[in-house]
Amino acid sequence: MKIEGYTCSQCGQEYKESLLQRCQNCQGVLEPLYSEKKISRAIFSSQGENMWAFRDVLPIRLDDHIVTLGEGITPLILSSRLGEKIGIERLWLKLETVNPTGTFKDRGLSVAMSYAVEHGAKGVIGASSGNALHAQAAYAASAGVPSVALVPENVPQTRLCQPIVTGTKIFRIRGNYSKSHELASILSRKVGWYNTSTTYENPIVPEGYKTVSYEISQQLKTSPDWVVIPVGAGPLLAACARGFTELYENGLVSKIPAMLGIQPNGCAPIARAFAQQKSDVTAWEEPIETNARGIADPLRGYSQDGTYTLKWVHYTAGAMVAVSDKAIAQAGKLLAEVSGVYAEPSAAASVAGVTEALRLGLIDPSSLVVCLITGSGFKENTTFGSPSVPTEIFESEKNVLDWLVNQSRT
Amino acid sequence: MKIEGYTCSQCGQEYKESLLQRCQNCQGVLEPLYSEKKISRAIFSSQGENMWAFRDVLPIRLDDHIVTLGEGITPLILSSRLGEKIGIERLWLKLETVNPTGTFKDRGLSVAMSYAVEHGAKGVIGASSGNALHAQAAYAASAGVPSVALVPENVPQTRLCQPIVTGTKIFRIRGNYSKSHELASILSRKVGWYNTSTTYENPIVPEGYKTVSYEISQQLKTSPDWVVIPVGAGPLLAACARGFTELYENGLVSKIPAMLGIQPNGCAPIARAFAQQKSDVTAWEEPIETNARGIADPLRGYSQDGTYTLKWVHYTAGAMVAVSDKAIAQAGKLLAEVSGVYAEPSAAASVAGVTEALRLGLIDPSSLVVCLITGSGFKENTTFGSPSVPTEIFESEKNVLDWLVNQSRT
Repeated sequence: MKIEGYTCSQCGQEYKESLLQRCQNCQGVLEPLYSEKKISRAIFSSQGENMWAFRDVLPIRLDDHIVTLGEGITPLILSSRLGEKIGIERLWLKLETVNPTGTFKDRGLSVAMSYAVEHGAKGVIGASSGNALHAQAAYAASAGVPSVALVPENVPQTRLCQPIVTGTKIFRIRGNYSKSHELASILSRKVGWYNTSTTYENPIVPEGYKTVSYEISQQLKTSPDWVVIPVGAGPLLAACARGFTELYENGLVSKIPAMLGIQPNGCAPIARAFAQQKSDVTAWEEPIETNARGIADPLRGYSQDGTYTLKWVHYTAGAMVAVSDKAIAQAGKLLAEVSGVYAEPSAAASVAGVTEALRLGLIDPSSLVVCLITGSGFKENTTFGSPSVPTEIFESEKNVLDWLVNQSRT
Repeated sequence: MKIEGYTCSQCGQEYKESLLQRCQNCQGVLEPLYSEKKISRAIFSSQGENMWAFRDVLPIRLDDHIVTLGEGITPLILSSRLGEKIGIERLWLKLETVNPTGTFKDRGLSVAMSYAVEHGAKGVIGASSGNALHAQAAYAASAGVPSVALVPENVPQTRLCQPIVTGTKIFRIRGNYSKSHELASILSRKVGWYNTSTTYENPIVPEGYKTVSYEISQQLKTSPDWVVIPVGAGPLLAACARGFTELYENGLVSKIPAMLGIQPNGCAPIARAFAQQKSDVTAWEEPIETNARGIADPLRGYSQDGTYTLKWVHYTAGAMVAVSDKAIAQAGKLLAEVSGVYAEPSAAASVAGVTEALRLGLIDPSSLVVCLITGSGFKENTTFGSPSVPTEIFESEKNVLDWLVNQSRT
């Protein structure tokens, strides 16, 4: 597959330019346009240690331009104990936590930074409040490309340590994420730096995410019934759906799995439209009330992005569900306790979501389900409402011994 | 290779028991005793996605007992820009940061927990102040094995969130790490829970670390001249040296690389003995003064462990060097800026160490060098002395634009 430009998913306009953001006619989401769409079965025999094992379906022409830190080829583990607890016979976890900066965003930034290098971008500029910022900072440093990040005013200081150390220039911007997002788009156009924001603002980023579907197909050796994905604006879900579609159209998988998108109750514009059986998503104008910050996107000013995601949900015969923060906390705790996987709230949302979808009868208990665990809990250090961390200090072995002896009795 | 028991590295006593800690005669470090030492070249043709690709050289008999979260097969990346900066032509980074809980400890706990399952341990108990604790908590939860951790009184609260969520019972113990370490050993004997402390207290843990040498050999397709390893007591260094030795004795690599062990100036018992050309290591009785907590082990009460590590250093014709915290901070900053890799101080020590070894003339600039980057910076969020994280909030695009335009001019 060779990239030739882009097609607008909304109006069909084609573009030959390289570092584009959106359709210049209608502001629609751009999709990469490939000249050759044939994918051979050989793609699954690659023995790569990172997602560039699938470079044949990625939009980079020269190997020299690849910027990699070893992203992808993440673990896919069967968690029978978790499955038993929530009532799914075959529940697999795709651990995107095991990526260079701890989230799936690394896949997107690896491709976008490679693309920036291949097309001679002067620098990159991105809006983010967390995980995408870490990925941008890491890959820009690795590539030696100047990097600027715009972050909402309320981002915790600890989130900014890694970008500072890697040399990304940070500007805190008054207002919520939408403001930083808008500014990145304006400034990118004005100074010609490549916008690597991981919304649909960058049409190359999702190409990296797409490799998740290739890996699942390779690792499972079959198609799952459901793939469960936390959703903000939805590029990860759309990219996975597109990846499975590419595979299906080339006869390499037997079916396209249904996508189950999960949003938090406190900011769920796409799940709301799904529930109301509307094809057009409208922005979330209510207050944003959730701890799952990574998927709290109100889509204000770009609600067409939600509509685009919703189309992919329907295309795969999937569904969208919304979950409470309480359900997310319970799921995060359960995931850690029985699987040993420590996720951030936005990632634990997928486990909460599959539980909710079961309850609603959307998913059958006998389904083969893959939950994407999108980001590591170590970057937030949430306790998911657990009893607080102990502060009492013990002087001798006695207290511990009592507890241990008591434990062995029970 | 099938494990049959242990041999004491100090007095040669053999043991057939399974869940042992140390030699019961002399308190020496135990090494696993394998009945069959032949390793075939096929070990390199495995296409596994985790370190269990090398299960033939790991001491677990039944696949059903394997407790895995996808540890190992970590990225090995060539960092020409970093190499250029510090004066090494061929500098590779082995990113142990890309492991389930962000450090190489996951390899050790994966094997130790599998071993605990295989031998029916009632529970596991470990002393740790950080990374080993996270690994213990994750693998115990995944295996469904009860888990207790003893932590020094001064461990930061944020470090305890993940073990709390995963269900490991935590006791804060008065005093420094040596006290927790001693107590874990005593309690383990008293109640029969398996001690998974990642010092030499557990002879199975290093078997997991050993896989690092197998991976480097497979990934590089040759033997490096030097492998650079941050050292506390030294199980990682000893295990890598042993792994390369196994490969060499089976004719699978052309030579055993020299091990370069790095300690911080403020706690460097093994590097001190090396510099003084002493074969016996003595404990560090001076105050411990370093931010590189993960490798600040004074060896008080178990200095023979340092002697054991030093033997492996000499066996590989390697060296030990000590570095200042200032040099570690500079190295951590440089590593992030030019490679995009965010390490914890204990991990950045390897980059500081190779720089120091060059200065001392221990390493030749034309050497093929692999630096182990042992742990992720995201768990500590250090800024390595960078200018502090920005707090100023900007109202509009103007300030950012000015900076960008100015940047493009220079």
